[in-house]
Amino acid sequence: MLRVEYRERGPVPQDVLELVEFDLPPPAAGEVIVKVVAATINPSDLLLLTGKYGQLPPLPARCGNEGVGRVETLGAGVDELAVGQLVLLPVGSGSWASHLLLKAGDLVCLPEEADHQQLAMLAVNPVSAAVLLDQGPDLQAGDWLIQNAANSAIGACIIQLAKARGLQTINLVRRESAVAEVRAAGAEHVLVDGDKLPERVREITGGAPLRFALDALAGAASEQLANCLSDGGLVLNHGMMSGENCQLSPRNLAFRQITLRGYWVGSWFASSTREAREQLFGQLAAAIVSGELHMPVAATYPLTQVKEAVAAAVAGERSGKILLLP
Amino acid sequence: MLRVEYRERGPVPQDVLELVEFDLPPPAAGEVIVKVVAATINPSDLLLLTGKYGQLPPLPARCGNEGVGRVETLGAGVDELAVGQLVLLPVGSGSWASHLLLKAGDLVCLPEEADHQQLAMLAVNPVSAAVLLDQGPDLQAGDWLIQNAANSAIGACIIQLAKARGLQTINLVRRESAVAEVRAAGAEHVLVDGDKLPERVREITGGAPLRFALDALAGAASEQLANCLSDGGLVLNHGMMSGENCQLSPRNLAFRQITLRGYWVGSWFASSTREAREQLFGQLAAAIVSGELHMPVAATYPLTQVKEAVAAAVAGERSGKILLLP
Repeated sequence: MLRVEYRERGPVPQDVLELVEFDLPPPAAGEVIVKVVAATINPSDLLLLTGKYGQLPPLPARCGNEGVGRVETLGAGVDELAVGQLVLLPVGSGSWASHLLLKAGDLVCLPEEADHQQLAMLAVNPVSAAVLLDQGPDLQAGDWLIQNAANSAIGACIIQLAKARGLQTINLVRRESAVAEVRAAGAEHVLVDGDKLPERVREITGGAPLRFALDALAGAASEQLANCLSDGGLVLNHGMMSGENCQLSPRNLAFRQITLRGYWVGSWFASSTREAREQLFGQLAAAIVSGELHMPVAATYPLTQVKEAVAAAVAGERSGKILLLP
Repeated sequence: MLRVEYRERGPVPQDVLELVEFDLPPPAAGEVIVKVVAATINPSDLLLLTGKYGQLPPLPARCGNEGVGRVETLGAGVDELAVGQLVLLPVGSGSWASHLLLKAGDLVCLPEEADHQQLAMLAVNPVSAAVLLDQGPDLQAGDWLIQNAANSAIGACIIQLAKARGLQTINLVRRESAVAEVRAAGAEHVLVDGDKLPERVREITGGAPLRFALDALAGAASEQLANCLSDGGLVLNHGMMSGENCQLSPRNLAFRQITLRGYWVGSWFASSTREAREQLFGQLAAAIVSGELHMPVAATYPLTQVKEAVAAAVAGERSGKILLLP
């Protein structure tokens, strides 16, 4: 059995990783051993390794926050799972591993017919996108929202889940070369950020209310989104890809009643009921099966090549996630 | 009759001012002529002259947004006012003038026994402070709030009106030399912004919830206030004395559920009922009479020395407002 750990944080994530051999005891009552099928490398994993994430675990720590696996060994009293069942790994379980010892009650069963790599990416971005869409004003079918970093993985999920709700999205990217992949994700309206953005947005909406902006960048990008919103609109920050603090002008805050809030999907995992989580996971797995939700995969690596995989994730410009297939 | 106007905006406010002679026609039905008793020079007046305010009037424009006057001539059908009545000038009426032609219905009667200079400062800072205190979470007697720029005129009003509501305030200033005047305004807890501010704040509150921050500075100061708040708290921006956009970290937004909103008292004037305004003005005038509310005056000038008065207001460090006494 193999898993990825780190004893210290550092500026080059792949340099602090260690591939460690380990053995698991037989599962105790209520526990199972799961063999990992696929695990995701997310930007938050890299921020944890460099120490730039908002909440950091004590060291040494294990890597990997999402993935899917297959039940391999059952502990006593585990009646609700069968050996071979495909399951969603709990977020933060250390998914960059060949095997995990988990509580049976923390596992959610997944449909065998869905693409397993797609399911491995379900717990972070699709869940975040679905929860973020619920944090805004009460939008009805036909209403508009705007997001930046639309070519990110969560951006694609927002496009697809908003469309499934009948919402119209305006999608911002920072370079012309990213437009095509955002259209490929299903977006109708894609704009390259720059001069006269509010005017270009208004041309698209025809002046209809635009009350909700999703901000994955922070920095000056937060203000740019605010400039596009109708008076009284909400900027919901959910990422800091710019590496800077959100900026918002007193003009937009005081004279246009723009509100800035933030959201971290971890707080949803902490505060939601098990029923609410299972319901959302089920809806998203169904959207994967139906094709409403589809996320590109840039490359896959075996666990033994985790350093190369993380280096590829760090390198930036690519279309899609990098997955580990232990 | 004399009034102050400007035909263009410029970096040095006093340079664009013109003192203009004018005559008023006899008041029409429902109008009155008011002789101005005292008018305030506020920071917002200077921002209007330099063009940095959020909403700018067309040019040429008249100066002065608040003051008190005495009814001098009544138009036909004005039964509710008597010649000699002390009145609050409507905000934005062009108060840097010897005389104003106003609608009788826009005037609020003031008590003769209150200090007239204090009354001249009632419509902007005390009203803003009272309205700002109503925009936060529902605080009860004994609860805490924090503000920066506590040595500003509005800061003093916030201290005094919060105290009248039984609230406890933590007051930030940027230099040691400002501490004494904030204490003189009635503050018990005054801190100089700097290292370990959140820890020093927590020492004062003893860890009690601190859910409301009033931000007159913007820039990095917004984030500094957020750092002092309890999870889920609100930063309410109402000024941009730093000249920069508000900054708030994704850490505070997403992980600590801090919200950033703004407030401009002009929107309250636009949206409140006449009854609500008269009620608040009456409460504040009573607070002036009782001594609960008192704002320092740094200097007074006649209208003919308006350029000197504005130059003194631009010059910065002083304790109290500069008033024009036409």
